Amino acid sequence: MSNGNIFVGETIGTAILILFGAGVCAAVTLRYSKAQASGWVVIAFGWGFGVLAGAYTAAPLSGGQINPAVTLGIAVDTGEWDKVWVYLLGQMAGAMLGAVLCYLTYFAQFQANKRQTGTTPGTAQEPVPTIGIFSTVPEIRHPVANLLTEIIATVGLVLPILAFGLTEGLGQSGTLVLIVSLLVVGIGLSLGGPTGYAINPARDLGPRIVHSFLPIPDKGTSDWGYAWIPVVGPLIGGALAGLISNAAF
Amino acid sequence: MSNGNIFVGETIGTAILILFGAGVCAAVTLRYSKAQASGWVVIAFGWGFGVLAGAYTAAPLSGGQINPAVTLGIAVDTGEWDKVWVYLLGQMAGAMLGAVLCYLTYFAQFQANKRQTGTTPGTAQEPVPTIGIFSTVPEIRHPVANLLTEIIATVGLVLPILAFGLTEGLGQSGTLVLIVSLLVVGIGLSLGGPTGYAINPARDLGPRIVHSFLPIPDKGTSDWGYAWIPVVGPLIGGALAGLISNAAF
Amino acid sequence: MSNGNIFVGETIGTAILILFGAGVCAAVTLRYSKAQASGWVVIAFGWGFGVLAGAYTAAPLSGGQINPAVTLGIAVDTGEWDKVWVYLLGQMAGAMLGAVLCYLTYFAQFQANKRQTGTTPGTAQEPVPTIGIFSTVPEIRHPVANLLTEIIATVGLVLPILAFGLTEGLGQSGTLVLIVSLLVVGIGLSLGGPTGYAINPARDLGPRIVHSFLPIPDKGTSDWGYAWIPVVGPLIGGALAGLISNAAF
Amino acid sequence: MSNGNIFVGETIGTAILILFGAGVCAAVTLRYSKAQASGWVVIAFGWGFGVLAGAYTAAPLSGGQINPAVTLGIAVDTGEWDKVWVYLLGQMAGAMLGAVLCYLTYFAQFQANKRQTGTTPGTAQEPVPTIGIFSTVPEIRHPVANLLTEIIATVGLVLPILAFGLTEGLGQSGTLVLIVSLLVVGIGLSLGGPTGYAINPARDLGPRIVHSFLPIPDKGTSDWGYAWIPVVGPLIGGALAGLISNAAF
Repeated sequence: MSNGNIFVGETIGTAILILFGAGVCAAVTLRYSKAQASGWVVIAFGWGFGVLAGAYTAAPLSGGQINPAVTLGIAVDTGEWDKVWVYLLGQMAGAMLGAVLCYLTYFAQFQANKRQTGTTPGTAQEPVPTIGIFSTVPEIRHPVANLLTEIIATVGLVLPILAFGLTEGLGQSGTLVLIVSLLVVGIGLSLGGPTGYAINPARDLGPRIVHSFLPIPDKGTSDWGYAWIPVVGPLIGGALAGLISNAAF
Repeated sequence: MSNGNIFVGETIGTAILILFGAGVCAAVTLRYSKAQASGWVVIAFGWGFGVLAGAYTAAPLSGGQINPAVTLGIAVDTGEWDKVWVYLLGQMAGAMLGAVLCYLTYFAQFQANKRQTGTTPGTAQEPVPTIGIFSTVPEIRHPVANLLTEIIATVGLVLPILAFGLTEGLGQSGTLVLIVSLLVVGIGLSLGGPTGYAINPARDLGPRIVHSFLPIPDKGTSDWGYAWIPVVGPLIGGALAGLISNAAF
Repeated sequence: MSNGNIFVGETIGTAILILFGAGVCAAVTLRYSKAQASGWVVIAFGWGFGVLAGAYTAAPLSGGQINPAVTLGIAVDTGEWDKVWVYLLGQMAGAMLGAVLCYLTYFAQFQANKRQTGTTPGTAQEPVPTIGIFSTVPEIRHPVANLLTEIIATVGLVLPILAFGLTEGLGQSGTLVLIVSLLVVGIGLSLGGPTGYAINPARDLGPRIVHSFLPIPDKGTSDWGYAWIPVVGPLIGGALAGLISNAAF
Repeated sequence: MSNGNIFVGETIGTAILILFGAGVCAAVTLRYSKAQASGWVVIAFGWGFGVLAGAYTAAPLSGGQINPAVTLGIAVDTGEWDKVWVYLLGQMAGAMLGAVLCYLTYFAQFQANKRQTGTTPGTAQEPVPTIGIFSTVPEIRHPVANLLTEIIATVGLVLPILAFGLTEGLGQSGTLVLIVSLLVVGIGLSLGGPTGYAINPARDLGPRIVHSFLPIPDKGTSDWGYAWIPVVGPLIGGALAGLISNAAF
């Protein structure tokens, strides 16, 4: 695979992932959305099928890693590091592009989230904080616990991915990405409760950068104080999964 | 594939798609339905498995495109235009047939939706507007934003479909349509919030025509003022996806 | 396939189908069940994965038809009628066995459904009607509309099943039953609202017979007046699907 | 497969299963979790995709049985008993490891579950009982009925698993574990209502041991009086499924 194909594939694939993933958070969070308050099962399947869409689209060009933690895990496992920087660049570019596309898709809903003034007292609706649509927000702020959650959840993502390739026939039947996407649904349902499961540094950092620049009315904080945890945690988890895979398989 | 097979396949396939898709909207919307108010996750999976049923049934005859935006995307990508009109005719015929079948399936529920007169004040139930069962209705009426939503969501549908065929083994294992149907579930969950995700001109226009003729009591408006957006938006999105696919893959 | 294998396969497969299907209805309906009131999405996936479990288990012995409407549709389509009676016998035996297994699985819940006497006024809970756990109950009693719903929904089941076999690779990959089970989920979500989607004469009649004999306390009516519709409707739908398939494919 | 590979595979696989399975119970049960009270459908899919993650990861090393009832059913069916003890050891070790990982993932939530003293009367929240996160708790305590439920549900798991391998192409396409994981979703939806579906002795006993030692504040009882039922029931069910499979297939 050429550097160009890798970059284009990862950019398109990660953009689709974030369009779907940030999209489902917008769908459930924002007012005047048909999916408002439709629950955690919608969030988990939305992100999972975002992986399905993004990774299958990227697959023919770059293999469809669309996650720096996966890229790191593969590099640690196999010892091949020379293309890693191209993957990371594409993933960051794609994550930022996807966040912009999500904003455009929900443009009218973001506008309607503006604080209303001059309305009858008691009827005005407060703006919903919007950073949770773009990036993860923990339920309880506890850096050690949050970091631990992201590390374990990312091992739970990357170790199975590294093992899936060893199941005979799965790659040949073309359904490997389907299995990964259902794995991601499972991580969301099971391990997403405490921190909202970044498990992907680009997924969290890219949209957070975009959020801090986008002209969303009353958008609230971009919460940069928390930003290092969903980057460092998944990177540690990805590397750890690579080490375990290398030792066990 | 002969023109006859294409027409029959697309008609049957699109009819099944709309029977399931409009059906799930009826199931969730109408009173005296076991699925009433069962939420957005039901809508999204109902449409997705409608694609599964319709596209697999059409596949042996016509390839199972059942969506003018997909047909347009393939034509733009490949440059083959000579069968496009047969696909479009079959898709429109099927969409109209499917809408009639949905009406018949929920016949008693549609009848029970009639405004009741002479009942005790305060107990009469107002008819539910029925156009949302047949065609899409935006949450916020904002032509530019609605059009943008439909364009992006349709790129999110057609670009992955064009790429899926390139994943080795996926077509040979026969599970390609399964992946597409889960992709459609994902689009519903993630990108359906603002406009109800037409992402298919026949899916919206065919049932709207049928709705304006069907003898549904107290059916409400067919909302023709909005009708052009879910036709034009998906066509632009499909063509755009074809161009991107042609350039990137 | 020998008659013995067909009978054993269909009996085991249909028993598993009904154990799961009636089971999920018990799970959602009865008090003191962890799934009580968990909604229509649970019902639809429970029945669908009941098909997955039952049909895959029966497949090596009998092909896993587990539904007289499917058996009839195949016979009309192919013209082979000589084994039909063995399939029907196995399906009825299995449906009745499955209903008994469901009763045993939820034994304590069925006992707890008994009308309580001598309790403080206003706190006693009325028994839940139990026929809806075993067999289908329409939301609106309207024989013509109910029959029409069952016919259309069964065509929506059997016609795709007859077409699925024609998709290249699907049978060879072993995932055909998976696709059928997701189709059944879709039918439940989309077309189950009016009548509860029998779409299978054995699924409705077998458990109804068992219900009328089981010593369930305060079980309520077995509703024999409705019993012919979920038998006749699916048989008409299955035959119709066979005719359409024979003509179109 | 060497004893070492079997032990490592089953340990890793069962640990992942319990991390996801206990994880989803924590997600739905504990306060300050994004998935709190998100319903039975989340529980069932969380456990099912835990099987997907765990069994696929273990598959290349040990075949991915990750359940003593499955191991017993295979041994009874095939008559090969010499590796059974290695599987059981790995499964118990993995189940205990997974329970610890779940505790670490939800560390802050478990801490926040502590009884609060000195708060304003009426605002203090009582601790949630935590044993239901680690092990199963019946809705109605009725040893005979609970045992029967676990036996039938385990036959509903192990008999299909033993049959799945006979479907041509399913193993070769690598999607067999996917089918099993959806089967487990189905068992949860349909048969999990009365007892919470242990259907796996290691899944219940391992985490219960861990629960009795973990320093969770205000954790409540480990409910050892019930502990034998989710061990004995699934073992009987697994053996029964092996006998049925041996006779029927």
